[in-house]
Amino acid sequence: MIKVSVMYPHTPGARFDHDYYRDKHMPLLKQRLGTACLYYTIDKGIAGGAPGEPPPYEARCDVFSDSVETFQTAFGPHAKEIMGDIKNYTDLKPAMQISEVVVERS
Amino acid sequence: MIKVSVMYPHTPGARFDHDYYRDKHMPLLKQRLGTACLYYTIDKGIAGGAPGEPPPYEARCDVFSDSVETFQTAFGPHAKEIMGDIKNYTDLKPAMQISEVVVERS
Repeated sequence: MIKVSVMYPHTPGARFDHDYYRDKHMPLLKQRLGTACLYYTIDKGIAGGAPGEPPPYEARCDVFSDSVETFQTAFGPHAKEIMGDIKNYTDLKPAMQISEVVVERS
Repeated sequence: MIKVSVMYPHTPGARFDHDYYRDKHMPLLKQRLGTACLYYTIDKGIAGGAPGEPPPYEARCDVFSDSVETFQTAFGPHAKEIMGDIKNYTDLKPAMQISEVVVERS
């Protein structure tokens, strides 16, 4: 199993609509991916590692899929629509990572 | 619910023993935290967002807890032992983030 992580760098003054992200964007992504999205998670950054330090990321999602190929095949045809929706909740440019799920849940 | 994420930046040539991390370090952390660790996840970075791009992070764990206070109270007395174990699997310096779990599992 793999996960695709999308991470929005915390930037003072930047716009990020967490409600839209939770209620509109991520459900849209899941609907378009169909069974290629096993499930997803959403985080909202609240702090960094040291006292008073901001979180590295304002928000993050992890999208779980059986394989990179399964994800890419399902995402490709909807990439334009999904990427086009980003402007509706943020002006941040996200970083992306694909990871092997070593431990899904201890 | 909150999660504490520990992220090890991908650095060419750096050392990271994924087996030790999975088999020794994270079980140690869970044992020491007791019920303050609801569960944890482990990721191994395999790619970035663009073709041929490396992952931002070599490895990541998320540790789930009921609250920041619950986590910190349980972690504090074992911080020295747990942090001291890091050198046994890597020379990377991790970034940390505390997040609110907005969606645990869609």
